[in-house]
Amino acid sequence: MEILILGSDGYLGWPTAMRFSAQGHGVTVVDNYLRRRASVELDVEPLFTVPNLVERARRWQEKTGKEIRVVIGDLTDSGLMRSLFDGTARATFPFSGKQGWTLPDVVIHYAEQPSAPYSMMDHKASCFTIYNNLMVTSNLVFAVRDLSPRTHIVKLGTMGEYGTPNIDIEEGWLEVEHKGRKDKFLFPRHAGSIYHTTKVMDTDLMWFAVRMWGLAVTDLMQGPVYGLETDETVLDEGFMPFFNYDEIFGTVVNRFVVQAVAGYPLTVYGKGGQTRGYLNLRDTLACVDLAACKPAKAGELRIFNQITETFTVNQLAEKVAGVGRGLGLNVEVKSIENPRKEKEEHYYNPTYTGLKEMGLKPHYLTDDMMAGMLETVIRHKDNIHPHKIFRGVKW
Amino acid sequence: MEILILGSDGYLGWPTAMRFSAQGHGVTVVDNYLRRRASVELDVEPLFTVPNLVERARRWQEKTGKEIRVVIGDLTDSGLMRSLFDGTARATFPFSGKQGWTLPDVVIHYAEQPSAPYSMMDHKASCFTIYNNLMVTSNLVFAVRDLSPRTHIVKLGTMGEYGTPNIDIEEGWLEVEHKGRKDKFLFPRHAGSIYHTTKVMDTDLMWFAVRMWGLAVTDLMQGPVYGLETDETVLDEGFMPFFNYDEIFGTVVNRFVVQAVAGYPLTVYGKGGQTRGYLNLRDTLACVDLAACKPAKAGELRIFNQITETFTVNQLAEKVAGVGRGLGLNVEVKSIENPRKEKEEHYYNPTYTGLKEMGLKPHYLTDDMMAGMLETVIRHKDNIHPHKIFRGVKW
Repeated sequence: MEILILGSDGYLGWPTAMRFSAQGHGVTVVDNYLRRRASVELDVEPLFTVPNLVERARRWQEKTGKEIRVVIGDLTDSGLMRSLFDGTARATFPFSGKQGWTLPDVVIHYAEQPSAPYSMMDHKASCFTIYNNLMVTSNLVFAVRDLSPRTHIVKLGTMGEYGTPNIDIEEGWLEVEHKGRKDKFLFPRHAGSIYHTTKVMDTDLMWFAVRMWGLAVTDLMQGPVYGLETDETVLDEGFMPFFNYDEIFGTVVNRFVVQAVAGYPLTVYGKGGQTRGYLNLRDTLACVDLAACKPAKAGELRIFNQITETFTVNQLAEKVAGVGRGLGLNVEVKSIENPRKEKEEHYYNPTYTGLKEMGLKPHYLTDDMMAGMLETVIRHKDNIHPHKIFRGVKW
Repeated sequence: MEILILGSDGYLGWPTAMRFSAQGHGVTVVDNYLRRRASVELDVEPLFTVPNLVERARRWQEKTGKEIRVVIGDLTDSGLMRSLFDGTARATFPFSGKQGWTLPDVVIHYAEQPSAPYSMMDHKASCFTIYNNLMVTSNLVFAVRDLSPRTHIVKLGTMGEYGTPNIDIEEGWLEVEHKGRKDKFLFPRHAGSIYHTTKVMDTDLMWFAVRMWGLAVTDLMQGPVYGLETDETVLDEGFMPFFNYDEIFGTVVNRFVVQAVAGYPLTVYGKGGQTRGYLNLRDTLACVDLAACKPAKAGELRIFNQITETFTVNQLAEKVAGVGRGLGLNVEVKSIENPRKEKEEHYYNPTYTGLKEMGLKPHYLTDDMMAGMLETVIRHKDNIHPHKIFRGVKW
């Protein structure tokens, strides 16, 4: 298959690109280095030094003989987006004269400002998040409609779109009976940040595009991802993911692991009863792979809840602390005043059977898995700058 | 009260401004003349020549002694939006040295690209509609949060956000019972155009702002409006609303009335069983007035369905044709292939009791009302350019 990955410099994009390339697919990656610039500007650089995309593609070619094409640019520019679907995009790597290529069979859409705290820093960051995420998604939808309607769109949603309702969370849809009549709707959305609100808006737009123009879309409602390594990251230290451990871009498990190694108390927000669904980085890649290989049909918005198990924040902290102490780390857990407006204790019962039925074999957050993550971070302990962890964004 | 009206050059904005000013409220209007420019660019100028906002405000002051302040600018610019809430906005009218004024008690948000067909013309118009509508709404939400959190936001939604579900449409909210548990959600949205999708996104954002920051918001889910005159338009021919009669910006009743007078067959899309809720321009003003005078509470998203009666397109065409023939017009009704992707026959049972309970006394679409509209348009028959009616936008 020919695979186009929008947003490839961040935590998930590059590992996804390597996986598909390793399997022999044609892969093109696109990014404007937003995550990288924001990490510098906010003084929250990642745990590992990550070479730029062209450098990584060059090393990937050296190690594997396979080519990952790299396009650098801003996908809020509809001209750039359209060039990816009409064969006129200009690659920065490789430097070959040939600039045209086959239309993508699948486009994987990671190209968004992905952080809830970032989106809540101030009105500029909020409006930027809305602008960036909505413009990229609309440019994508119209480019596919106009230029390549058979391309399957795999869009990353988030479990956060559902919030924490008092009813069971189904996979994307809800049958409603009301006053003796029935209909089926998107499962109600109730987002907890501006970032999450933009993901709800993405869903509104994709659902419209599917109904009106018969596009084929898979929406992966992902929970927070954790993990450092995949089958491909081990080939070169430059292949490690863009692993943030700060409050802005670091997801909670990754951050707790680094805090445990750094001797920085694990910061539980309020009562710590906030329950969410989580998954391993390897499982994200497997889910995206499954979605790409078994595409949605034309006119179908196929929605999966992309998590493998649920934990409260207290359970995560206890797990990190327990395994960490077993490795000789001095791990404290500390509850702090909740900087977010969210329920600290609530009902949470999401369904997540669809991807397992498709063939997903989950990597669970076992003590062994946790020990492995801690050991990797311990090897890179000198890279940790504890003052980068806390950023104090409140809402 | 001090009232700020965003989007004041279009069909509803100026009549709203005159009504509030006539009642003795302080009124500031803001517009970037988007509707006016688009009407020229698309060759769909309105039935009446409409002076610019400053000229209308000048004439209003001559006739009534009352001042309507006019700010010309683009509200996708967050600097302009914030200046309206920190007292630094610069008015084009009046030319007084004083540029600061009292913070608004109410802001009425009409400042959007308001046409479904416009939003479906091509990818540029679609993306522009998303950009314009979302950026204005987010700039508004953050300006109110940061600078004037007690200002009540009256936002115009649309009944089109609900689409045509197979269950009764409630006023904004739906109680759901699912597997023995209950919760209350926004009534499911299912928009039929990119324009309507942006209104769903507005709702997502407003609902977030209400929950997170305790803003006070009234969402008026309006149906298509018809009518030419209000108590104030009769004072000066320059006070007539921006009355489009084309397929892009003209609402269906207004368009049919002009078509009947012009001897242009009334164009029913497909089977004509499409049912919607409608209201008179006078009732729009009354509803906005009721909402402004009895504001939503802090932390409340108050939603009303702003319609007074429902009709199928066939019923509207028959009514216009019947009354028109009674006035000696030669009115034909012609079904054409539906240019839109929509159900032509469907269940439709919306609730719309909230505004009547607040005190609304509807002006219904009686034969007398219709005859009055037809007579007004007959007096301006020479202004009708039949070639401006059809624009052939399909989706």
